[in-house]
Amino acid sequence: MSITGYQLIGYSKSGKSKETFSGTGPGETKAELFHEASTEEINEAVMKATAAFSVYRKYPAEKKAVFLDKLAAGIDNSRTLLISVATRESGLPGPRLDGEVSRTVNQAKLFASLLREGSWVRAIIDLAIPDRTPLPKPDLRQIQQAIGPVVVFGASNFPFAFSVAGGDTVSALAAGCPVLYKAHPGHPATSELVAEILVNAAKESGLPDGVFSLIQGVTHQTGMRLVEHPDIKAVSFTGSLAGGKALFDAAARRMEPIPVYSEMGSVNPVFVLPEILKTKGAEVAKALAASNTLSAGQFCTNPGIIVSNQSAESKSFMNEFAETIKSTPGAVMLTEAIYSGYAKGIRKVTDKNTVSLMAVAGEEKKGYAQPHMFSSTGENFLDDESLWEEIFGPESIHVEARDNNQLLRIAAAIPGQLTVSVWGTENDLLNHRELLEILELKAGRIIVNNVPTGVEVTAAMVHGGPYPATTDSKYTSVGTQAIYRFTRPVCYQNFPKALLPEELKNENPRGIWRMVNTQYNNSHIQ
Amino acid sequence: MSITGYQLIGYSKSGKSKETFSGTGPGETKAELFHEASTEEINEAVMKATAAFSVYRKYPAEKKAVFLDKLAAGIDNSRTLLISVATRESGLPGPRLDGEVSRTVNQAKLFASLLREGSWVRAIIDLAIPDRTPLPKPDLRQIQQAIGPVVVFGASNFPFAFSVAGGDTVSALAAGCPVLYKAHPGHPATSELVAEILVNAAKESGLPDGVFSLIQGVTHQTGMRLVEHPDIKAVSFTGSLAGGKALFDAAARRMEPIPVYSEMGSVNPVFVLPEILKTKGAEVAKALAASNTLSAGQFCTNPGIIVSNQSAESKSFMNEFAETIKSTPGAVMLTEAIYSGYAKGIRKVTDKNTVSLMAVAGEEKKGYAQPHMFSSTGENFLDDESLWEEIFGPESIHVEARDNNQLLRIAAAIPGQLTVSVWGTENDLLNHRELLEILELKAGRIIVNNVPTGVEVTAAMVHGGPYPATTDSKYTSVGTQAIYRFTRPVCYQNFPKALLPEELKNENPRGIWRMVNTQYNNSHIQ
Repeated sequence: MSITGYQLIGYSKSGKSKETFSGTGPGETKAELFHEASTEEINEAVMKATAAFSVYRKYPAEKKAVFLDKLAAGIDNSRTLLISVATRESGLPGPRLDGEVSRTVNQAKLFASLLREGSWVRAIIDLAIPDRTPLPKPDLRQIQQAIGPVVVFGASNFPFAFSVAGGDTVSALAAGCPVLYKAHPGHPATSELVAEILVNAAKESGLPDGVFSLIQGVTHQTGMRLVEHPDIKAVSFTGSLAGGKALFDAAARRMEPIPVYSEMGSVNPVFVLPEILKTKGAEVAKALAASNTLSAGQFCTNPGIIVSNQSAESKSFMNEFAETIKSTPGAVMLTEAIYSGYAKGIRKVTDKNTVSLMAVAGEEKKGYAQPHMFSSTGENFLDDESLWEEIFGPESIHVEARDNNQLLRIAAAIPGQLTVSVWGTENDLLNHRELLEILELKAGRIIVNNVPTGVEVTAAMVHGGPYPATTDSKYTSVGTQAIYRFTRPVCYQNFPKALLPEELKNENPRGIWRMVNTQYNNSHIQ
Repeated sequence: MSITGYQLIGYSKSGKSKETFSGTGPGETKAELFHEASTEEINEAVMKATAAFSVYRKYPAEKKAVFLDKLAAGIDNSRTLLISVATRESGLPGPRLDGEVSRTVNQAKLFASLLREGSWVRAIIDLAIPDRTPLPKPDLRQIQQAIGPVVVFGASNFPFAFSVAGGDTVSALAAGCPVLYKAHPGHPATSELVAEILVNAAKESGLPDGVFSLIQGVTHQTGMRLVEHPDIKAVSFTGSLAGGKALFDAAARRMEPIPVYSEMGSVNPVFVLPEILKTKGAEVAKALAASNTLSAGQFCTNPGIIVSNQSAESKSFMNEFAETIKSTPGAVMLTEAIYSGYAKGIRKVTDKNTVSLMAVAGEEKKGYAQPHMFSSTGENFLDDESLWEEIFGPESIHVEARDNNQLLRIAAAIPGQLTVSVWGTENDLLNHRELLEILELKAGRIIVNNVPTGVEVTAAMVHGGPYPATTDSKYTSVGTQAIYRFTRPVCYQNFPKALLPEELKNENPRGIWRMVNTQYNNSHIQ
């Protein structure tokens, strides 16, 4: 495999534009030039995707599953090359990327097994009652169907797991939707390599040309052209609030509005309760500090606000956290833009006289994130909404509430989040039911005695949450339920059995779980 | 029960505004005056709803089910009064309204039984693996939770089933969301009576003040104030494209965008295939003409475009349809605005020289819809996108395709619809698989050998579809699945068992169906 700097328009390489760019990551990427996708190339990619959709959406589950398995194997087999290129582009350490490659491989396999099991289509069958009066009851059968070609934007901070062959792409392809993939300019070479592997797996599995295209670009217009194309039916994005909201607004302005699943991060507030502060304060401080600084703090679920009631124990907790921060080395950030965003955010907080700097690590160095820890009183924190804004990087603000009422007021003031966490003993938790009930309204995932980083890829995961964490709190972008972002329900009324989708036939040939006359079963209909 | 013209702000009557209006329906409604809700009243209603939400969302299923049953009984017991007031306001005939009251009663009962059965919460459990390496797997449990106070807009054409206690309201209340109900000005008295019944049932069931408010108004601003209120979390609407799109746009412009479920109707194309034209043409023509003119054609699922290949049989079919139309009496329409919209739509089509008038019934009379039938060639139809626009009333355009290719081109040109239908013998259907595959992409419900009017209220129903039929093709507004418009998934990570929602506890006390470690069962966890 070699890096050409071209688009992959379906199965064809294409480099029509004279505009080029080099990767915006911190590594030695300037040697390679990538073509900015032209409008013509984007239109061709969407045209191919639309044509591919009409056949691909009907593919049997097994055929799509075989493709996903091949994709997983292809990535696994190129692990060494992929990690070396991604390290060079992103500055992320090898072991971290190795884990991410494994996650990416496992995600593809997970969707393959979801397709093979088959019940994900949510088959619902209500049988006819021909002799019902005054009117016969018709036969009604519903399943989820693919919505059409979709655009996936790659994330800067996960060159594999939220990029070319990441959760968004594999959930869309599993649903039956062709993917127009807009690579993040932070790691264009890694993107091209993974796209090559994906396209090879697609070809070998007999998938139609156009089921996937790789679109390279560093300008906002390139992404907007994709979102505004009338044949695109949904968009998924992981990144900043400004970026995700701009895509949402563009999609809402279209002649035909389409759903946009922007995951825009959050500050992931953590509440540490009194008894656990006493019994395990130092341990919790170390765990949270490690979570806050992992991968230079560049996670959507990074814990950025930590709240406790003021006490001698909370002071010790904060000191322990501060010591851990001070001994954490700085780390190179993903792109120059992310570094300057972080530096700007830190300056903004440092300049406030209502917030104190408690710890900072390492020396100032361009491109490198110095871990920072601040503290504030509950009053000052409640008075300043800007403190809720995410600073993407290894930074946290520790808030000491005057009393439990103020703690609850802080909880009530939280804007939408991906996660909220509570650390407490069993007693603590039982004594803070009201806090938990407030937090339940604030996030997609509520965590007890665990760090928010480390997002398990599984059926029950919700990686989502109320705005501004995402633009659509009804969906997750991680785990098997992510597939429903790319489907819609279709109801078949009085269809001849021969023409029904397999999953809705009386015989239930795939043995899937269905709701038949409001009862769940995985058997056939007599 | 008496009609006061007041708002119901939670459990309090309120008529603070000096602005009043009388019902816009065709009946003798001018005697009663209704207060336009003031901003103050709207704010108070939302404040009460927000307070109610924090307790109501946690109510046990049985308590909400008892309320829905009481609501159903209350409506059933006031059937005679309700029908007489609604007949006076809407002009709809008594037997039609009687059927609609039954449907409304059954809808409330259906959601009560959905709550009692309990599996609708979509519980997903992935058990912990504490000794997994390199990191323990956490315990993750997901269910659907209510999203918050929602606004429901009543429809003009269903004074009961899509109004105060209709499917939108009962699905939102079943989900655990307080409802701010904006009454349609076509039937404000009917709305007040049903709201009284609902509020009495709520009080008797011990529901909190604010779980429901009735907002009266005839201006657009009143509805917009509700949608723009920052504490509102979703909106549902049934009505025109212009109205539904305006609400969608307003919601997208909010500081926090919220989902809008606008069901905006469609032309519900019907394809009649060659063999059935031969064998049952007259019968199909009569069934479709009756469906087209039922309740003066004022149904979202009214069949407005009928397509067949040109032939001697299609001519006979159209003549039979025309004869039925000619013998159908005109009927009074729901409001003056709806009548003038119909009259304007008919003039627009009549003025086209590419379309022929084939039948018209009755005499022209202000407020009364005369059934109309037009015909067009496939060429002319494909050349004029405006012919796809819905004319709300008893009107249809019959399109004769030159050949099967043109028939497919017409199918491919269809914009998003609530329904598409195909009439055919088994041979017809097997010979037109390509047509069915195209139609599958166009609508929420695909019907074989049935009229589109008559929307069964059941689990498998999809009353929705791609834009412009709705603003969100991923949801239905009819049937039990309508509840998911008002919920979002929440994941609980490593929660102590005592603090988990009932539905997620190991014991599975309610015996609901859950997905545990990717397997479906309704048993407990060992």
